[in-house]
Amino acid sequence: MTLHEWGEEGLVKYLQAVFPQPLKGYGIGDDGAIIPRDEGEVWVVTTDALVEGVHFLKEEIPPSDLGFKTVAVNVSDIAAMGGQPHTGFLTGAFPSTVQISWLMDLIQGIKEGCEKWNLQLLGGDTVGSKRDIFINLTLIGSAQASRVKYRKGAQIGDIIGLTGYIGDSAGGLKALQHKLGDSLDVQSLIKAHFRPQPNPQEGVWLASHEAVHAMMDLSDGLDKDLKRLLKASGVGGSIELTNLPLSPSLRRVCAKQKWKGTELGVMGGEDYCLLFTLAPESCEAIQKGFEEIFGKPLYLIGQVTEQREALAYQQQGKTVQLTLEGFEHF
Amino acid sequence: MTLHEWGEEGLVKYLQAVFPQPLKGYGIGDDGAIIPRDEGEVWVVTTDALVEGVHFLKEEIPPSDLGFKTVAVNVSDIAAMGGQPHTGFLTGAFPSTVQISWLMDLIQGIKEGCEKWNLQLLGGDTVGSKRDIFINLTLIGSAQASRVKYRKGAQIGDIIGLTGYIGDSAGGLKALQHKLGDSLDVQSLIKAHFRPQPNPQEGVWLASHEAVHAMMDLSDGLDKDLKRLLKASGVGGSIELTNLPLSPSLRRVCAKQKWKGTELGVMGGEDYCLLFTLAPESCEAIQKGFEEIFGKPLYLIGQVTEQREALAYQQQGKTVQLTLEGFEHF
Repeated sequence: MTLHEWGEEGLVKYLQAVFPQPLKGYGIGDDGAIIPRDEGEVWVVTTDALVEGVHFLKEEIPPSDLGFKTVAVNVSDIAAMGGQPHTGFLTGAFPSTVQISWLMDLIQGIKEGCEKWNLQLLGGDTVGSKRDIFINLTLIGSAQASRVKYRKGAQIGDIIGLTGYIGDSAGGLKALQHKLGDSLDVQSLIKAHFRPQPNPQEGVWLASHEAVHAMMDLSDGLDKDLKRLLKASGVGGSIELTNLPLSPSLRRVCAKQKWKGTELGVMGGEDYCLLFTLAPESCEAIQKGFEEIFGKPLYLIGQVTEQREALAYQQQGKTVQLTLEGFEHF
Repeated sequence: MTLHEWGEEGLVKYLQAVFPQPLKGYGIGDDGAIIPRDEGEVWVVTTDALVEGVHFLKEEIPPSDLGFKTVAVNVSDIAAMGGQPHTGFLTGAFPSTVQISWLMDLIQGIKEGCEKWNLQLLGGDTVGSKRDIFINLTLIGSAQASRVKYRKGAQIGDIIGLTGYIGDSAGGLKALQHKLGDSLDVQSLIKAHFRPQPNPQEGVWLASHEAVHAMMDLSDGLDKDLKRLLKASGVGGSIELTNLPLSPSLRRVCAKQKWKGTELGVMGGEDYCLLFTLAPESCEAIQKGFEEIFGKPLYLIGQVTEQREALAYQQQGKTVQLTLEGFEHF
């Protein structure tokens, strides 16, 4: 039997069985791991890799964007736990044929990301690779222990929300694959794909509210990631498709190309906004506070149900079937 | 210009220029990075990758040994700073064609390493890879701030020492390449190559002595690594080849195969013992204390000189030239 048949879930499940979660702190399964630090404070640690041919095509993504993205996806993981990232460690495996100019641009992109989110790159490892490029960043952040959010906290009746648009990155990837011209809308989608903008401040703000019960970031697509959150919490969910936050750019490109925007939003990966559930009675206040502080709406897209691990999609209240598959690593 | 022409030193130099070391703590260049924690205590962080086709051949190394080695090489980096490792984060990039049985053995080897050195694997990232396997471990350890050792501390007149044999791993690799039979001696060398035994307790003990001025671990070979330590300290060194600690197994295999044991010891990589310099007046006491506690000798192989960045090899006091090259990543 190969990894293809096992899939990522099978591999992670096996790892969880071999390395059980310690009593204090949380282990494999959330976006970041928690290490108790001082009284009341914890460190949040995450590690995320980008592999050539799987996460990026070298001839397609500008190296500075790739560097920026490496930082962004890790910042997003720390944000998902409600932490503030501060220190990074970089591993790069490169074939000896890589151009120095390409490497310099990559490193400049990493620096840009580090400066944007006020991170210090403190160390790492540079090694050779026979064929493919492999970039891994480990990021350490801080959080108040009482404010850390996990996937497992969702409660029946909670409202399901998002901090940003979904589907733009998947739309950008599709636009690249279809070699669409460079209208402003297409450019905006490609930028979302190459230079994701995680929500670390939004994450810290949401985590400061007790009414926010569960949180994670969207990396493998709403469908796949929300199912993970629901599973971790032992609950189900229902999503109203008409409430999905699709950007004006995505809507226009989809209309023009006859693409299904809803499916891009639900199944597309690499959104890197935050997915959370919150107590319905606090919904209005948090929505209002969020809008005041961040100058953008908080998108409420569905509700947590008691149908254990089941995720239902509705179109104006009527259940519909979606068929596309999300991103599978193996 | 490609990375081949730049080399690892060029890449690290560029990274150091782009990411200057912060005022507190030390950055890119040592075996681990230092993050201040509480008063007097620091965290030591290191990250090390093993890449298929570069660091290992999948058809050659048993997967459980590969897993164990992944942990061992990182433990060695923390040991080099005088720290005690406690928490690990693993990234694995695997093609979907990898056999589940191979993965399970790999993970068991990682678990073995974690249990041996009392580490908790708290998280990580599992991703796909198009062709080659990449394994990256980030390890966090603790140390007393005042006891951390760096490469830059060597002083003129210091004695240069090692905590273990050198050349066994290189001998094991050569034995594999020459398909030597499986005599006990050959087996012992191959074991040193596949299952290195770092010296974390020795590292903490040595770090507790003020007389130990500089320390690092041997991963790319004595010649290359010692030159790095001397360069960081702005000094030179002289090594007496007759004092090199070559194991009885390596000596016997070299005698039989007509290999040059000294060159394997000086140029071969992946020894994962500790290289350090210490004040000559404390030498005898530290050597005696080490032998009492660890039941093995501390090997004194040379002296720090004022010939800035120059490393001289001597044979019974007479300078000799060595020609072989150490391991180059790119």
